[in-house]
Amino acid sequence: MSRSTPRLLTGDRPTGRLHLGHYVGSLANRVRLQHEYETFLILADLHMLTTANRRADIARIPEQVRHQVLDALAVGIDPDRVTFYLQSAVPEVAELNTLLQSLVTVSRLQRVPSLKEMSRGGDMSYALLGYPVLQAADILCVRAEAVPVGQDNHAHVEVAREIARRFNGLYGEVFPVPEVVSSEVPALVGTDGQAKMSKSLDNAIYLSDSPDEVTRKVRRTYTDPNRVRADVPGRVEGNPVFEYHRAFNDDRGQVADLEQRYREGRVGDGEVKDALAAALNRFLDPVRERREHFASRPGFVDELVVAGTERVREVVREVVSDARKAMGFTAVYNGLKRHAGVPSTVR
Amino acid sequence: MSRSTPRLLTGDRPTGRLHLGHYVGSLANRVRLQHEYETFLILADLHMLTTANRRADIARIPEQVRHQVLDALAVGIDPDRVTFYLQSAVPEVAELNTLLQSLVTVSRLQRVPSLKEMSRGGDMSYALLGYPVLQAADILCVRAEAVPVGQDNHAHVEVAREIARRFNGLYGEVFPVPEVVSSEVPALVGTDGQAKMSKSLDNAIYLSDSPDEVTRKVRRTYTDPNRVRADVPGRVEGNPVFEYHRAFNDDRGQVADLEQRYREGRVGDGEVKDALAAALNRFLDPVRERREHFASRPGFVDELVVAGTERVREVVREVVSDARKAMGFTAVYNGLKRHAGVPSTVR
Repeated sequence: MSRSTPRLLTGDRPTGRLHLGHYVGSLANRVRLQHEYETFLILADLHMLTTANRRADIARIPEQVRHQVLDALAVGIDPDRVTFYLQSAVPEVAELNTLLQSLVTVSRLQRVPSLKEMSRGGDMSYALLGYPVLQAADILCVRAEAVPVGQDNHAHVEVAREIARRFNGLYGEVFPVPEVVSSEVPALVGTDGQAKMSKSLDNAIYLSDSPDEVTRKVRRTYTDPNRVRADVPGRVEGNPVFEYHRAFNDDRGQVADLEQRYREGRVGDGEVKDALAAALNRFLDPVRERREHFASRPGFVDELVVAGTERVREVVREVVSDARKAMGFTAVYNGLKRHAGVPSTVR
Repeated sequence: MSRSTPRLLTGDRPTGRLHLGHYVGSLANRVRLQHEYETFLILADLHMLTTANRRADIARIPEQVRHQVLDALAVGIDPDRVTFYLQSAVPEVAELNTLLQSLVTVSRLQRVPSLKEMSRGGDMSYALLGYPVLQAADILCVRAEAVPVGQDNHAHVEVAREIARRFNGLYGEVFPVPEVVSSEVPALVGTDGQAKMSKSLDNAIYLSDSPDEVTRKVRRTYTDPNRVRADVPGRVEGNPVFEYHRAFNDDRGQVADLEQRYREGRVGDGEVKDALAAALNRFLDPVRERREHFASRPGFVDELVVAGTERVREVVREVVSDARKAMGFTAVYNGLKRHAGVPSTVR
């Protein structure tokens, strides 16, 4: 813990291509934070088991990992600064997960609001109830001091903080208690006006969408449903098209002008949407360019993930070894080895 | 699974010295089964975290392991037949535990009766709710086909069977579905007449008790509380002293005689108890002798556990590797490695 730059853990389940909602909700934040923190970006494929555990789901992971990493690089994550790694290839995380399970109660986990949502009212798997425990293992196993999460994930980090404190209290100071570094921007509304842009709702504009796709999706995007004609005054609040303008249009004057004329019934949806499509494509053009740059280097993304994973595995091995030592398990086995006349080991 | 001798997993949390209740409930059975099965005897110290997770609890494990192994050897477990191993020194078990967690629901685990009992009405830890999942990992990670358990643990093995079936169904046949090989004898009553002989109730006669201790404990043992004088007819059913006679006295004629005279009010408690103390010490004398034999060999027990653990670790590494392969996780990382131009590995 004498490092000069604090550590940050961030990442997602590798569900595939990322969209504008991811950018606003987390990626933009990560791009900024990579300069302040030593950043680990987890590709959390073990967490996928909580909701999609069939063989076909697992077989899709490599493709989804590549998309996710390319999207991150495309928006400006610096591969020389950030360590990407594949969770399932670091088995010591699973070991720490098991060691932490006695430090939190079932009723505490049942109070985490997002889990109920994820189980969609169905019967929750034991893995899903333990999602915050495995997440705590992710955070603690690299000794992350900071975790940037959206509002809906605050409760998960709170569980990780409680587990870290409880571990340190029982066994001595091994883990920093991670702090939430929250992104300020709430989740982006979907093109269908639903509260959240999401792959499963099919209401997303992807970072890898072509200019034409973007234009087409913008044309279909919901606006104020009460505005039946262009000369009817409309609402810009909660209106997806204007939300996107505010989030992505770099021409602030244009946004202000369109908002005023929309409120006064002096602009058609077509003009607002054309301006939005143009603005989104202005934002996405350099993203596409960077994506293309990295995608054109054969094996670059795979190599980045493999090198990062091997590096993280070294870190995690040491941390889990420290945890085992602090708990006393190392001494247990070494005690037996010593009595047996077998050389003891560090583990 | 082309082995000629089927595999059996058995064992306990290393809580220390074993008593007559353990002998009747499980040890006698294990001594018999070691001839029919390739037996793995787990010293399940990770399971101790569910109920005792302080550093002081963990520090006591080596001593408790030594007592437990000595007691097992003392009653006739053959160190050349049975593989003892320390659970916490096989981290791949913890990995499998994490991989299995999506295969069982919270509500299924909440229906396991023994867990409520273990939580003693308090708030259950996440580890305690997952006790049967870690136990499933124990059973499956050595591909055990048989598990001898008492009545109160049938539900745990049932969960392991469900998890094995579910895993095989989702990912292909990796695990045998373990069968319960139940011990016939219910738990032994305590010296205080409580339903169960138990360390925590301080009502146990230990396999390592000296002849004098045994005699002293037998003198204090409860009999029929309604029998206020030697000439009052007494009950032999549910009477601890007669339960012990029936379980341990090799002089069946003496037992029948004492039972009849007790029922008719023609024998004093003193005579019944003297006969019992003598019978228990007859039973325990060769146990003590074998215990002494193994205890006198410096480092023998520790070496046995360390050698067994290293051997089991090899087995478990292979099985968990098979599980990862079947799930598709091996292919995920190897796919990335291949694209990256890095040699792939088996894991």
